[in-house]
Amino acid sequence: MANTHRNRLHRVRQRLAEARAGALVVTHLPNVFYLCGFSGSAGALIVEAGRATLFTDGRYTVQAREEAPGMHREITRGPLFAAMGDFLRKRRVRRAGFEPAALSVEQSRELRRTAGSRVRWMALAGVVETLRAVKDAGEIALMRRAARLGSEVMEEILPLLKPGVSELDIAAEIEYSMRKRGASGPAFPTIVASGARAALPHAHPTAKKLRKNELVVLDLGAILRGYCCDLTRTVYLGRAPKKIRRWYEAVRKAQQAAMDRLAAGVAAEEVDGAARRVLEGERLERYFVHSTGHGLGIEVHEEPRLARAQTYRIRAGNVVTIEPGVYFPGAGGIRIEDDVAVFANRIEVLTSAPRDFLEL
Amino acid sequence: MANTHRNRLHRVRQRLAEARAGALVVTHLPNVFYLCGFSGSAGALIVEAGRATLFTDGRYTVQAREEAPGMHREITRGPLFAAMGDFLRKRRVRRAGFEPAALSVEQSRELRRTAGSRVRWMALAGVVETLRAVKDAGEIALMRRAARLGSEVMEEILPLLKPGVSELDIAAEIEYSMRKRGASGPAFPTIVASGARAALPHAHPTAKKLRKNELVVLDLGAILRGYCCDLTRTVYLGRAPKKIRRWYEAVRKAQQAAMDRLAAGVAAEEVDGAARRVLEGERLERYFVHSTGHGLGIEVHEEPRLARAQTYRIRAGNVVTIEPGVYFPGAGGIRIEDDVAVFANRIEVLTSAPRDFLEL
Repeated sequence: MANTHRNRLHRVRQRLAEARAGALVVTHLPNVFYLCGFSGSAGALIVEAGRATLFTDGRYTVQAREEAPGMHREITRGPLFAAMGDFLRKRRVRRAGFEPAALSVEQSRELRRTAGSRVRWMALAGVVETLRAVKDAGEIALMRRAARLGSEVMEEILPLLKPGVSELDIAAEIEYSMRKRGASGPAFPTIVASGARAALPHAHPTAKKLRKNELVVLDLGAILRGYCCDLTRTVYLGRAPKKIRRWYEAVRKAQQAAMDRLAAGVAAEEVDGAARRVLEGERLERYFVHSTGHGLGIEVHEEPRLARAQTYRIRAGNVVTIEPGVYFPGAGGIRIEDDVAVFANRIEVLTSAPRDFLEL
Repeated sequence: MANTHRNRLHRVRQRLAEARAGALVVTHLPNVFYLCGFSGSAGALIVEAGRATLFTDGRYTVQAREEAPGMHREITRGPLFAAMGDFLRKRRVRRAGFEPAALSVEQSRELRRTAGSRVRWMALAGVVETLRAVKDAGEIALMRRAARLGSEVMEEILPLLKPGVSELDIAAEIEYSMRKRGASGPAFPTIVASGARAALPHAHPTAKKLRKNELVVLDLGAILRGYCCDLTRTVYLGRAPKKIRRWYEAVRKAQQAAMDRLAAGVAAEEVDGAARRVLEGERLERYFVHSTGHGLGIEVHEEPRLARAQTYRIRAGNVVTIEPGVYFPGAGGIRIEDDVAVFANRIEVLTSAPRDFLEL
């Protein structure tokens, strides 16, 4: 077992001891990957004080051995959750923790039924997510590479934006470029949104062709060795009206204000507030329909959230997106997004594509 | 509201009436898409006898209006599940159904808390999934197009397989080709597995280069207008040893036997058994580590499953994959997969790439 995984399991066990639980049933797949390296699409981990056991099925026998060599492995023939319940019963676990956000009501019933009535169950929310929010040096090095990859893709793609090219064509080029640079795939459905469609923060690319005098929002993320990047740029095809330049500069200032505020010790809501206040000052706050950013890592959305009412204190090791945006239904939208790592006394912007307003 | 959606909601309401429930909380996103056309990544639907209400957040205001024009829409500012619970309380719903496989323990708690103690909850498993398993003519037409797209991609890619090209390069070409043909993206992580890696049924493509005298498994799926295809071919680089030809022919015969057995009225386990018996006859059954196939549609894995102990009776309108495979740890693997639609008196193989053994 890699030292990294051993250390992570150790910290989970500390939490188990505090909660007086004999086992944690880890069902959220990104958490399974974080704790043991297994990246299959079906599996779960049971962490006990003395051992950690990976449960998966026959499709993953070889992969589980390769990716999680030091773990106990159970290859189940029947339903995964019944096998885990049986295991807990046989191991005479008395108190078992579970992940309430990553266990369905159905799975919970199956687990309780097969584990038997001697097991007491307790929701242990966010145990692994809290660890994952603070990246170690190895993770930040991987995320730096993922962010560089995303930035290179963005810089390669921007010159392709021309009237007549479809949103789908651009999305194809983006994902191809990621793959050719070694990404295992997109971290989320690539967004290419032009004209009025740029008013949809999560627009799917369509057959719509780019036209002159339109805003185009590109939001792309790649997964490299299990870690995500997430990057947005907005450009204008043609010479932009003054109003649009003003909007762009407002979003850019909002992003800069959030970056300036971001530091270890600051509350997440304050980072969000910094961006929001700039847009308020420009009377654009009502067009900013989402939050300022989110944690980034094995998942594209993780802890901490940079949003209203988030009292989480930013810590060294957090990696977050900073992505204010404004959206005008029917007219278009503007978003600028970068990935930022927090250190004890500084931040590092991991993404590097230029943020100047581009008129193509 | 489109007629299609109206009809689907009507059938859900029949099930609600049978269960004497006043509402169904639909949280599985593919079910939400099926019932109202909304394709965002966050949302849920509450179906009552007299209305259907789509809940989502501010990122999807415009998209929800475009995709689900006839629905009541609630754009929530706070947590989605609290808003839905409040709604049920205000609507004085007395008995509410939920989807136990698509509601986490945490969401269930939030929903129960905010709906208040007057609501009685009942698990209504598979209501929408059962409807989705039987495709209508419009869906089959879409799936025919998706399958044709996948087949064209396969035929375009096979000639690129050469010693020296990496698995990742091939995956990039596959996904690029899908996109250029109009797919909104891959239906699952594209599999390109060569040499010993072909023994992993769900292998991720790696930087490993293809070599002479290796098996290469390509498993690709594309999403076109919301519907998936799923297609696998296995080729040999070079002139294959006799043993490998024998394995390939066995898998092909197993696939043909399953297709021959597939018909309306037949139990799903019998289709699986037909493939399994062929491999048993060739003493290869123990290397067949998964089931024969699965339903295909909005999701890449849906009802019915063609596996052991599945008593579901195949119906006209089912669309399934038929994909037997054999895997030899350390040596490689072979899988052949096609998509098949079932009609009252015949089946139609939707995918069209050649199934002959290819030595490249």
